[in-house]
Amino acid sequence: MKIGIIGGGQLGRMLALAGTPLGQQFAFLDPAADACAAALGDHLCAEYDDREQLRRLAESADVVTFEFESVPAETVAFLAQYVPVYPDAESLRIARDRWFEKSMFRDLGIPTPEFANVLSQQDLDEAVRQIGLPAVMKTRTLGYDGKGQKVLRKPQDVVGAFAELGSVPCILEGFVPFTGEVSLIAVRSRTGDTRFYPLVHNTHEDGILRLSVASSDHPLQTQAENYAERVLDKLDYVGVLAFEFFEVDSGLKANEIAPRVHNSGHWTIEGAGCSQFENHLRAITGLPLGATGKIGESAMVNFIGEVPAMARLTAIADCHPHHYGKAFKPGRKVGHATLRSADPARLRAGIAAVQALID
Amino acid sequence: MKIGIIGGGQLGRMLALAGTPLGQQFAFLDPAADACAAALGDHLCAEYDDREQLRRLAESADVVTFEFESVPAETVAFLAQYVPVYPDAESLRIARDRWFEKSMFRDLGIPTPEFANVLSQQDLDEAVRQIGLPAVMKTRTLGYDGKGQKVLRKPQDVVGAFAELGSVPCILEGFVPFTGEVSLIAVRSRTGDTRFYPLVHNTHEDGILRLSVASSDHPLQTQAENYAERVLDKLDYVGVLAFEFFEVDSGLKANEIAPRVHNSGHWTIEGAGCSQFENHLRAITGLPLGATGKIGESAMVNFIGEVPAMARLTAIADCHPHHYGKAFKPGRKVGHATLRSADPARLRAGIAAVQALID
Repeated sequence: MKIGIIGGGQLGRMLALAGTPLGQQFAFLDPAADACAAALGDHLCAEYDDREQLRRLAESADVVTFEFESVPAETVAFLAQYVPVYPDAESLRIARDRWFEKSMFRDLGIPTPEFANVLSQQDLDEAVRQIGLPAVMKTRTLGYDGKGQKVLRKPQDVVGAFAELGSVPCILEGFVPFTGEVSLIAVRSRTGDTRFYPLVHNTHEDGILRLSVASSDHPLQTQAENYAERVLDKLDYVGVLAFEFFEVDSGLKANEIAPRVHNSGHWTIEGAGCSQFENHLRAITGLPLGATGKIGESAMVNFIGEVPAMARLTAIADCHPHHYGKAFKPGRKVGHATLRSADPARLRAGIAAVQALID
Repeated sequence: MKIGIIGGGQLGRMLALAGTPLGQQFAFLDPAADACAAALGDHLCAEYDDREQLRRLAESADVVTFEFESVPAETVAFLAQYVPVYPDAESLRIARDRWFEKSMFRDLGIPTPEFANVLSQQDLDEAVRQIGLPAVMKTRTLGYDGKGQKVLRKPQDVVGAFAELGSVPCILEGFVPFTGEVSLIAVRSRTGDTRFYPLVHNTHEDGILRLSVASSDHPLQTQAENYAERVLDKLDYVGVLAFEFFEVDSGLKANEIAPRVHNSGHWTIEGAGCSQFENHLRAITGLPLGATGKIGESAMVNFIGEVPAMARLTAIADCHPHHYGKAFKPGRKVGHATLRSADPARLRAGIAAVQALID
């Protein structure tokens, strides 16, 4: 069984690490010559719209999946002529566009911040009148890790903001006074079987995820699963889907979905019965899903810019380093550590020990 | 950090799967064009005495290790001129020769079956007079999985037996009426730090390991660790060493050591804090050792000849399939399943479910 993956970064790399023991082989299409997943399979070094190489990938693979959601729609449609593609074109169309995504939440009765479509400065002025300030303006597509966003606090922030974000389609979102950010990693099989990992508490800095802690018996678990299930069923989704929520006094408000394995699910490599990576592969290849329950207490600390010295990381009890084999660069996700501990106190000590190596 | 591995089979493959998240890269020297580890690193397709390729490996690697112990002594000596090699030449010299190995056990006061060196049929006749029948005759080197062995039960079995095993140096071992077979996976760091996994109960069929079950509070754990520590310290050993014992009424008798990661330690991939593969890599690269304690209850079922259908394996709760990506062939180790369960009853059910797919 050969899996084609669009993108050859750390998510592709971790998918291959999970799938190799299942006897799967991997091919990655990625324009970067130094794509870090290439160590674990064939590397087609080509642009995402290179039809010759896409066709080569499709013809060599039994199924194709994605490492990121901002794949051109044409790429997905082209591939789907030759090979099963999961998640499918419609799931990607929705998930890569904040307007489609939030509209779907609304249609499915899932609470979400107030939002409006912004195709011009005039739209923006009108949206600000309706939603009020503060608000967050985001490009509809291609945003990640806080990029493609602008917080509008005062009326003068609104002036020229549309041009400032590149005069591309945007949405304006009402500011949500959230008390926390959580994500739910869900997986749905080809036959509609659906499983959920425990909710994860996430801490961001400068828009980049820094820390994820898997919860135990989170009071909003059922609500999160209910919302995610509506989306999964609506899209007839196959694979892992990550659902990010704001925690507010009244419960959860949907922020966004990612139609792929997700940074906030990396703890599952050591911390769950079956990791998000293996479960994604099981789902798209038609295998039964694996266990999503926690093993002990788990957390994940991201390494941004550089990975601390391996000798220091491996000296920390319960610490499992994950070095992505990428060149170090400020602001770049280059690795993470999973901590899996017998109890919460020990987990907290492990997190603190890893964080002490970062600052 | 680049690791050179002599041999590119499943042990090399699982070493690479464990080391890739540590940011390590791998190169394998193996004469087989279809070496299954090649998916995870560079493959130097060459004989083990090909000095040009050995030198290439040594020059590209920061450290070199072995997947099997029957490496020619000249290969080890040649490599050691260029690069640190662990385990070292002396450890391999002892471990690959049953006569040296058992002599070391005797010198270190470690109980072992009676044994005698057999360099001729005359030696064999004399050894049989001393040790008695039944006894087991084994080639001193190159035996594995029951190959290179002959059980001598009756006097007529002894006639011509030396020629039958190829007229190569052998030992004769007294038959041990053992009640069980256990192995201890030990790891020793460059600085002499030593850790042990829990004793594993092993079941063989036709000389090939079929089932390993990790024990809990085994009454002979301390004795096994004591014996293993004598060997590790004597050899100033670096890396994982597997120690196989017979369980007899009076305790343990040493059967053999393997200076490498070992089939009876595969359960540690999911079943221990840090797997034997990661700990071997930590040891030889000078990193601190990882936790060797069990997570839940664990066992390993070997797949000989073929791997059951992945759809059936993944349908079994707690089952983690490991497909080596090798061509199926009768008698060949082509995969295993690790079972990691919350309690012994569930573990037994999992083992039975996996075994039901084999017969």
